[in-house]
Parts: sequence; C-alpha cells; structure tokens
Amino acid sequence: MNFCSNCGSKQISLKIPEGDSLPRFCCEQCGEIFYQNPKIVVGCLPVFEDKILMCKRAIEPRAGFWNLPAGYLENGETAEEGAIRETYEEAHAQVEIIRLHVLYSIPQFNQVYLHFLARMKSPDFSISTLESTEVRMFAYHEIPWQDIAFSSSTFAIEKFLEAKNSSYEGVHRGYFPGIPNR
Amino acid sequence: MNFCSNCGSKQISLKIPEGDSLPRFCCEQCGEIFYQNPKIVVGCLPVFEDKILMCKRAIEPRAGFWNLPAGYLENGETAEEGAIRETYEEAHAQVEIIRLHVLYSIPQFNQVYLHFLARMKSPDFSISTLESTEVRMFAYHEIPWQDIAFSSSTFAIEKFLEAKNSSYEGVHRGYFPGIPNR
Ligand SMILES: [Zn+2]
Ligand SMILES: [Zn+2]
Repeated sequence: MNFCSNCGSKQISLKIPEGDSLPRFCCEQCGEIFYQNPKIVVGCLPVFEDKILMCKRAIEPRAGFWNLPAGYLENGETAEEGAIRETYEEAHAQVEIIRLHVLYSIPQFNQVYLHFLARMKSPDFSISTLESTEVRMFAYHEIPWQDIAFSSSTFAIEKFLEAKNSSYEGVHRGYFPGIPNR
Repeated sequence: MNFCSNCGSKQISLKIPEGDSLPRFCCEQCGEIFYQNPKIVVGCLPVFEDKILMCKRAIEPRAGFWNLPAGYLENGETAEEGAIRETYEEAHAQVEIIRLHVLYSIPQFNQVYLHFLARMKSPDFSISTLESTEVRMFAYHEIPWQDIAFSSSTFAIEKFLEAKNSSYEGVHRGYFPGIPNR
C-alpha cells in the first residue's frame, strides 16, 4: 500500500489505531484506516455414483495439478452459491449441496476454505474448461494423491473416504500442515 | 475507491478485467486490479452448565443489544483462534471449541458467519469489558430474544436449543432472512 485510496496521500503508516489491538495501514492525511482480512475459498467435493469430480488446474498457482473445484467467494454470494458457481466454472458440472464437509484454515496465507459435499445432478461435465485443462471423475482407488494441487483438497478427500461408511455428519476441521499446537 | 493505492493515479474504473466475469476496480495507469471479497465473522456459542454466555454490545452497530461473542477474523489466525480471541475480548471468558455449529451467510453485507459451539473452561468472565457494557449467562428460558443484535446469533441459539437433545453433530446452515429461493 503506497497511496491512500481515499485521498491519494502518500502518508500511509502501519500503526495500531486507538482502541484497536493490531497494526493497520492508516492514512495520516484523511484518517482512513485500511483493514485487511482473510479471504474465503469455497468449493465442492462433487460425487456421483462412487466417483469424485476433480479438475486439473489451468491457472497458476499449481497449474497442472488436480484439485477439487474451489475459488474465492465473491461479494453478494452465499457460501453455498459460491461453491456451486465455482464447480460450474471449473467443470461445467451442476451440483446440489448435501452439507458442509470441511472447514480448513491456512493462516499463513490468510485463507479459510469451506468445502461442501455435493451431489452431481447428472454425470454431465466438460472434459476441459477455461479454468481446467482436464476434468474427470475418479473412483476412490484412483485419486491422484501425489498430484493434488492444495492440501485443502487432500484433507477433504481423505476425510470423505474415512467417514463415508460412518454416520458422522459433522464438519471436519483442519489446518495447513505444520502449524504446531493448533 | 478514488485513487490507486499502488501508483496514486486517479484513473480508476470499474470494469470486467479480461478473463474475469465480474466488474472490479482497475487502475488504468498501472494495471492493478482491486478485488473486494466477503469477510468472515467468527464467534462462539459459549456454554457452561445449561447456560449460554451473551454480551451486550458497547459498540455500534446495534449497541445496547445482546449478541453472541463474534467479530472479524484477522489475518494470521485460524477460524477457531479468531472465535476464541473474540470470546476473550468481549467477555474475558476462556473457551475450548467443541465443533462448528453454524454457517450463516449475509450476502447483502458480504459477510459469512462461522459460529462454534464452545465449552467455557470455567464459569469465569467479566461482567463488563471494553467491547461489552454487560456480560451474563442466560438459562435457556431467559434468552433475550427481542433484544438480540444480529440474526446470526438468533439463528445460532435457536438451532442449538432445537438440536440439544438430538445426536446431530452437523452444521446448521442459514442465510439472512428474506433471501428468496436460497
Ligand atoms: Zn487518505
Ligand atoms: Zn495504479
């Protein structure tokens, strides 16, 4: 942050505003305070007849790796609407939400993932899209574990496979590997 | 947004960047794109021996109304850490997370609430704090339904009371009242 987006001043300092407890970018000219907060990544674990839909990423980061369809929640959307939209954009698949499956925080990157378990309304999808160089259904024994783009997808699929024969309907909570004592 | 926070230019336009599908604030001078995304509000439903801890808000909006302890997730935190921090800040109560209880979207305000069911480690709290003019434990029949600050708290407490004698461990998903077909 080099300039105040409100008044254009260059007098931006990183300091703790009065009554606050964390440093924020503050404009010394007009007094505006700029808060930066984590972003929400919403996605689905789309299932159809014992297979899971995954997308090979066309876009960096981690282009060429497989992932569950997911992306940033946009203003004006519910979490569920964002997850359904991302699944359509990345795979042209239409899903309905079954339940929230995973809550996964990556505090190092200021991200919180919400992955929904979702039922594909039909087996239709596109084998490639603007956002995915390849889209396919994987049987449970075919999951490309070594080529998954993000740890959030690995966690979501692991927990799905572990719990699929149990009656547990709760959310699986996880964190980016390597955070001690969390 | 009046000025580019990167280069200071006043040439900001709201347009759909190439390859994107939604309008964003874009700097015509340096090409920077400014994304705006929903914020995460994290909170707890703190319980101790059949009572629920609530806080009377000292701060607008909705000052003077009762609420579950909650606030914006900060960069560098997991969702759970944020919820524990907010409960401490607003009530000086120490809790441990039991599970994620509510996912509640307010797309009109670009917010997603995550409320955790939490156990108070002890019955200790402060009867007022910087953020709360009053803090108290409510028995289930004492909940101040008419004086609750936000619909997310009403939803979280309603679902808790409805489900407390069931074995359901899943998340209760909700939306701001009045959204049709969501
Ligand atoms: Zn300024
Ligand atoms: Zn610029």
